[in-house]
Amino acid sequence: METNTPRRAICLLSGGLDSSTSLAIAKQQGYACYCLAFDYGQRHVVELNSARKVAAALGAEEFRVAKIDLRVFGGSALTGEMDVPKDRAEHEMGAGIPVTYVPARNTIFLAFALAYAEVSGAADIFIGVNSIDYSGYPDCRPEFIAAFENMANLATKAGVEGTSKFHIHTPLSKMNKADIVRAAASLGVDLSLTHSCYDPGDDGAPCGSCDACILRAKGFEEAGLADPVLNRK
Amino acid sequence: METNTPRRAICLLSGGLDSSTSLAIAKQQGYACYCLAFDYGQRHVVELNSARKVAAALGAEEFRVAKIDLRVFGGSALTGEMDVPKDRAEHEMGAGIPVTYVPARNTIFLAFALAYAEVSGAADIFIGVNSIDYSGYPDCRPEFIAAFENMANLATKAGVEGTSKFHIHTPLSKMNKADIVRAAASLGVDLSLTHSCYDPGDDGAPCGSCDACILRAKGFEEAGLADPVLNRK
Repeated sequence: METNTPRRAICLLSGGLDSSTSLAIAKQQGYACYCLAFDYGQRHVVELNSARKVAAALGAEEFRVAKIDLRVFGGSALTGEMDVPKDRAEHEMGAGIPVTYVPARNTIFLAFALAYAEVSGAADIFIGVNSIDYSGYPDCRPEFIAAFENMANLATKAGVEGTSKFHIHTPLSKMNKADIVRAAASLGVDLSLTHSCYDPGDDGAPCGSCDACILRAKGFEEAGLADPVLNRK
Repeated sequence: METNTPRRAICLLSGGLDSSTSLAIAKQQGYACYCLAFDYGQRHVVELNSARKVAAALGAEEFRVAKIDLRVFGGSALTGEMDVPKDRAEHEMGAGIPVTYVPARNTIFLAFALAYAEVSGAADIFIGVNSIDYSGYPDCRPEFIAAFENMANLATKAGVEGTSKFHIHTPLSKMNKADIVRAAASLGVDLSLTHSCYDPGDDGAPCGSCDACILRAKGFEEAGLADPVLNRK
């Protein structure tokens, strides 16, 4: 690789507030960003359109969608086998593992990111997990991320041959939603392109009452900013 | 779970000699076997038919196929972007990483097995990696398997809640191909159903000259057994 070539990073991108901000941070740190989204039978396919637009707006080098079948295992509200819970208070969201948990989802997503990293010559992977997520999702916790990174360096040609050491970046790890909204705004993320709702209408409009909508609204409120997605309605 | 209910295991099953033998060993150890195969854009889709027949013949409880798109990353002879090497001597196969290496493949396969384990209430995963494989494939080595197991116990609801501890079983780890052929024969695996070739003909017949065919032939020869797949031709 030439000296002036920017280092490449794989950026997991759902088109939501968190992953879009994570991508913007990778870009700010000087990485050439290779974005990876998943078509995994989620209810909210509208998020793939958001992801594509966000990647383009933030000047990503590539945007790829990997089609994977998580419905083969059932078991989550996000893949349509259960109802998305509505109008829950925040303490209810934090109690136990949410029904929107997709089994081993981040393990699967990071495994694909690792494959993409190997073929792209990237050693860095960005994932937008944060402190609110890991109250309920086991695969958002720092211990999990560290264990995945260790495994990744034993799993790969590049790791074995010592040509690169993989690093999983979680720039949002210690941020709450308000911090993320502020970071996104200061990095110039076009928040009108992002999408957070677990259960959007056919026109893509957020439901306003699922956990993701409630947490997003709270984040914007605490950051003292208006959510352009709601203003667009 | 009731006392007399057998423990459940997820068995990764390609329909090849190794994974079929690994399944037979899980069955012999008393597990109720939940088999998982992948349709990942491999050239040799004939192996999925083998896998289905092997699962049925060995009395598996379930057989599921997860469709995943590895071609999105390119990069391997097994997904059709390169030619499958033919007529290589064994020392050539062992030199470096083979072109049949699919980036992060076992990481991805085990991640799906973990999701399947979570929804099935299984704590055990069987994978048929062996000592010949890990001469060339980084993600067949014991260090990798141990690191994956550690990560799995941090990734999951069951791990976090302490309801089960995941264990990745590699019963073929120290066997060579002849050992595997002997084990398969002694466990009553119908080897005529198994499929190893990387590049079969349209009728599913093995090419006889790819690495997988050469290693399989050597294994049968050293075990002093005839390969029923060749006799079938």
